[in-house]
Amino acid sequence: MSRIIRVAGAQMGPTQKADSRDHTMARLLRLLEDAAAQGAKLVVFPELALTTFFPRWLIAGTELDGYFEHSMPNADVQPLFNRARALGIGFYLGYAEATPEGQHFNTAILVQPDGSILGQYRKVHLPGSVEPRPGALYQQLEKRYFQYGDLGFPAFRAGEDWHKAVTGMMICNDRRWPESWRMLGLQGVELVCLGYNSAAYDPNGGKTEDAVLRTFHSTLVAQANAYMNATWAVAVAKAGEEDGSGLIGGSCIVDPNGLVVAQAKTLGDEIIIADCDLDLCRQGKDKMFNFAAHRRPAHYAAITERAGVIEPS
Amino acid sequence: MSRIIRVAGAQMGPTQKADSRDHTMARLLRLLEDAAAQGAKLVVFPELALTTFFPRWLIAGTELDGYFEHSMPNADVQPLFNRARALGIGFYLGYAEATPEGQHFNTAILVQPDGSILGQYRKVHLPGSVEPRPGALYQQLEKRYFQYGDLGFPAFRAGEDWHKAVTGMMICNDRRWPESWRMLGLQGVELVCLGYNSAAYDPNGGKTEDAVLRTFHSTLVAQANAYMNATWAVAVAKAGEEDGSGLIGGSCIVDPNGLVVAQAKTLGDEIIIADCDLDLCRQGKDKMFNFAAHRRPAHYAAITERAGVIEPS
Repeated sequence: MSRIIRVAGAQMGPTQKADSRDHTMARLLRLLEDAAAQGAKLVVFPELALTTFFPRWLIAGTELDGYFEHSMPNADVQPLFNRARALGIGFYLGYAEATPEGQHFNTAILVQPDGSILGQYRKVHLPGSVEPRPGALYQQLEKRYFQYGDLGFPAFRAGEDWHKAVTGMMICNDRRWPESWRMLGLQGVELVCLGYNSAAYDPNGGKTEDAVLRTFHSTLVAQANAYMNATWAVAVAKAGEEDGSGLIGGSCIVDPNGLVVAQAKTLGDEIIIADCDLDLCRQGKDKMFNFAAHRRPAHYAAITERAGVIEPS
Repeated sequence: MSRIIRVAGAQMGPTQKADSRDHTMARLLRLLEDAAAQGAKLVVFPELALTTFFPRWLIAGTELDGYFEHSMPNADVQPLFNRARALGIGFYLGYAEATPEGQHFNTAILVQPDGSILGQYRKVHLPGSVEPRPGALYQQLEKRYFQYGDLGFPAFRAGEDWHKAVTGMMICNDRRWPESWRMLGLQGVELVCLGYNSAAYDPNGGKTEDAVLRTFHSTLVAQANAYMNATWAVAVAKAGEEDGSGLIGGSCIVDPNGLVVAQAKTLGDEIIIADCDLDLCRQGKDKMFNFAAHRRPAHYAAITERAGVIEPS
């Protein structure tokens, strides 16, 4: 019995500060309709898909709070849930989460075609800084606005609509950290969904990285980590110029060999599609990357014992 | 003060069972001379550079023992040590090691331009099987002939000839495991040397992998892991047809952005060269991959707690 899921990536062009919630939701709905019309059973939206990438601004109070969702779904987002269920398509959605207890996370959810929330993920690898960088035109203040994700890297067993796929989520910077992928790989993940907002320049203030190099990095880590964990991966950007600050595109769908099978060509709203045969994961999982047979955890101790570098003397 | 090392990869074409030790050593010496003539201060030879890839055969006794080095250097290999020291060039050499206690390892050493052995590494990620695969024309019996490496993944601080580079070694299959790279990355590695003998077909008996795909995998993992650990990497093949069994080439030198800066074009003896500026590692190590600031080991527990997969129910 075939285990093929038609998956869409819904790259989004920029969302300006001035864009209304309604305007943005209309774009999400158009992308959802387009993906469904092409037969997709899952559409992956970007990180922080409902707003501009607000961590580039030093803000506070009501202005900051306006970027957060206080429940999910909520009245603003309910039309997406309703339309997806009517069309029989599930989705991955990234958003800024404010909990009733006052915590703040950079969060994503996976919603199945029947409208049920399969799982939630809170971003573990927050980049940037707590304090603004003096003199910088754009900041990267994720460490200021969000707490570190407290859910680990859970994998979820989907229902029949997705052929009981073992699914996992990441958000943006997580994809550059092989530990994120391995944590999902150790749960047998077959399909990794991730959204991103990645600057088209060095967000840490250096001068050596441009949009071409950063798009290369983004694609490279999706390819290699998909291969090394024998999984499909769908990596989806919010792209283009948001209020003058550039974001890379390059949204892609990668197979368990690390081959790019679909990639966005623009920096705007754009659907990419692939038929993902989950059973293609078996070649890697059963042979080269048969973890039980070939991993040697006794020699990996430093990976969990410490965060930072200790150089040889 | 500039920290540029001119590094060579000395890809080797096939070494047949019938080839004499003298014949093979003459090839190594020619490659060493060529690399030194081009100004290299380090030349990386392949895994098991002194012999054919004998784990493809089911053998025992004297025949098997003949493939192992019982000391290093020994009379057969001393000419390489002597000539390298005279030329002021260091090298990485892979070989089959038999210890005085009767242990057997798939081993590599790094020798500095002054002739001193900077460090030794014993392959941790042994692929293949203990028992031969029935009916297979070629075996992959590394788990039969070698013990798992017992030295972990040590990094070594080189001397002035190599600008005090933090260096590390891997062997072949290790490169497909992000844990190998991360263990070196956590020691601040700036230059990873690795040799390989990788089949041009699926060594585990599948039908879906060919030489093109396997060369892509080999290059991909060097690129992505070099980037994710902000290090240079030099990956060097023994290539071509050994007694009818194909090995991929694709030897490459990769920079800390994951960009291939030199790659072999043949399946034969071939030198590739690059000037490796160790200070290019700082961009990654200080910013995106500042491990102390951004890694979250509390969420990586499964990586060291277990070897194999546990799927969600």
